[in-house]
Amino acid sequence: MTEFGFIDRIRELFAALPANGFEGIGDDCAVLPLGNGESLVFTTDMLAESVHFLRSAITARELGRKSLAVNLSDVAAMGARPVATLLSLSLSADATGVWAEEFMQGYRELSEQFGVTLAGGDTTRSAAGITINVTAIGRIADTHIKRRSGALPGDVILTAGELGASGAGLRDILAGRSDTPAAAVHRNPQPQVAEGIWLGARPEVHAMMDISDGLASDIRHIMERSGAGAEIDTDRIPAAAGADTQTAACGGEDYKLLLTADAAAAGQLAADFRTRFGTPLYPVGRITKTGELVWLENGAPRTLDWHGYTHY
Amino acid sequence: MTEFGFIDRIRELFAALPANGFEGIGDDCAVLPLGNGESLVFTTDMLAESVHFLRSAITARELGRKSLAVNLSDVAAMGARPVATLLSLSLSADATGVWAEEFMQGYRELSEQFGVTLAGGDTTRSAAGITINVTAIGRIADTHIKRRSGALPGDVILTAGELGASGAGLRDILAGRSDTPAAAVHRNPQPQVAEGIWLGARPEVHAMMDISDGLASDIRHIMERSGAGAEIDTDRIPAAAGADTQTAACGGEDYKLLLTADAAAAGQLAADFRTRFGTPLYPVGRITKTGELVWLENGAPRTLDWHGYTHY
Repeated sequence: MTEFGFIDRIRELFAALPANGFEGIGDDCAVLPLGNGESLVFTTDMLAESVHFLRSAITARELGRKSLAVNLSDVAAMGARPVATLLSLSLSADATGVWAEEFMQGYRELSEQFGVTLAGGDTTRSAAGITINVTAIGRIADTHIKRRSGALPGDVILTAGELGASGAGLRDILAGRSDTPAAAVHRNPQPQVAEGIWLGARPEVHAMMDISDGLASDIRHIMERSGAGAEIDTDRIPAAAGADTQTAACGGEDYKLLLTADAAAAGQLAADFRTRFGTPLYPVGRITKTGELVWLENGAPRTLDWHGYTHY
Repeated sequence: MTEFGFIDRIRELFAALPANGFEGIGDDCAVLPLGNGESLVFTTDMLAESVHFLRSAITARELGRKSLAVNLSDVAAMGARPVATLLSLSLSADATGVWAEEFMQGYRELSEQFGVTLAGGDTTRSAAGITINVTAIGRIADTHIKRRSGALPGDVILTAGELGASGAGLRDILAGRSDTPAAAVHRNPQPQVAEGIWLGARPEVHAMMDISDGLASDIRHIMERSGAGAEIDTDRIPAAAGADTQTAACGGEDYKLLLTADAAAAGQLAADFRTRFGTPLYPVGRITKTGELVWLENGAPRTLDWHGYTHY
């Protein structure tokens, strides 16, 4: 069974249980409306050694930063402000002491950068390998929440940054070249926290998520949850330095925001975004009614068997 | 460094960061007051194969229940009602399929029993072994929150059940006898959720936590956080069937509630508890001003080098 197959099975198993005020599974974060116009959002992410990282290819400090970054990215993808995390660490005997201290230094650096408190956690030894789990908590005005399900036919699809650097970096690392700029990007993702909060406050933004498994995979989540289709202009996908278009579309772990916005307002949105952040929003396509994902080149359909990164 | 030494170091590292409304680390759960007389509480717990469980000694279904139970116990220990969990699973190739399905069946059974929703999670493969992380969320009226720090000199110390069955069961399991009643208790802890909520509503209960590392260890957390001492009457420690007094005092994973209550009201509290739950609250000692932990037998001090269970 794939990761998504198992998740579907879990959703089915738990469907009949009381929701206790929580919205259902299926977005970057779980949402708990507090009843006063504000909601809390929750996300959790587990990183396992030799699956998500190689200890020889990332420093403890970088891994501390990255473990937090991927969770802050999920909170930002809802439009929410991250406020706290819970950190669990299972450490093999050779990863205590200096390694653990440097991991926590990195975790603290990014916590400080984004003003996030460490509210709790758990530490234990492991028989083999390092496993890290982070749960992140965010706060947001109900009216600012951006869900995967909000896309409307005619919406412009935009990414809040260039894509593919992380995928190119992973390729470099697996080839033994850990010193390339792309490899550094792969090890040091920057969650778009301020960008997410800012986009959350813009009503013309209809749907949002972060690109963690690649545009080719993640746009399908927006399509599925919104009951819509999408056209992607392959010639407008903003490939980062060192990445070709396919890597930009299919590589994982970019952690850039992917959003859909009202077509009439998207130009002004992008202009305001550039004024605020100094970088563009890249229009890469549009939401359709068809239910299909169509790749276009110079406006004509291309048959491409492009898919995102699969962790499982 | 021990687990507690590392936790102290983490607390120090993060002390200067903004709290964002959260109370500091150091209780069974992190507390987030919502400002409307209600708080949310959060706890997280990681279970690693070969450290916290042996796959040969616990079924997948039992482990699913236990992974949830230990977290619900932490929520109950604050007096709070558990409402939701986030579940992360890192599964080796030999633990997918049937094993994963049965784990989720067990997790669901206990979720249903206590009306807790599954709000989110993460699943991934692992290179070796199973790692499980659960984050549990509870809700509680601010006035009902019971902290480790609330104990007052003169308080009676009580446990909400017999102790040592889980420790005796672990001893049996490690000796290859997995079919004893004590071993079954070790594999199937029952979190005192209704008891915790009920005790949370009683103002004469001053401090509360759950006994996860043994009375000998956990009473020290109440002492430390309350700036107090304690006397324990060793002849009043309620040893479960199959456990001697030392196992009852020092064995881990009983997940019974440990509380302190106003001495003048403790008798009525215990009577009301018995009426409500059909089982006693066991008085085992009293809070003192000294800062010391004193073991008594027939009222006279005994010198005992008793300590709780250390996971790290």
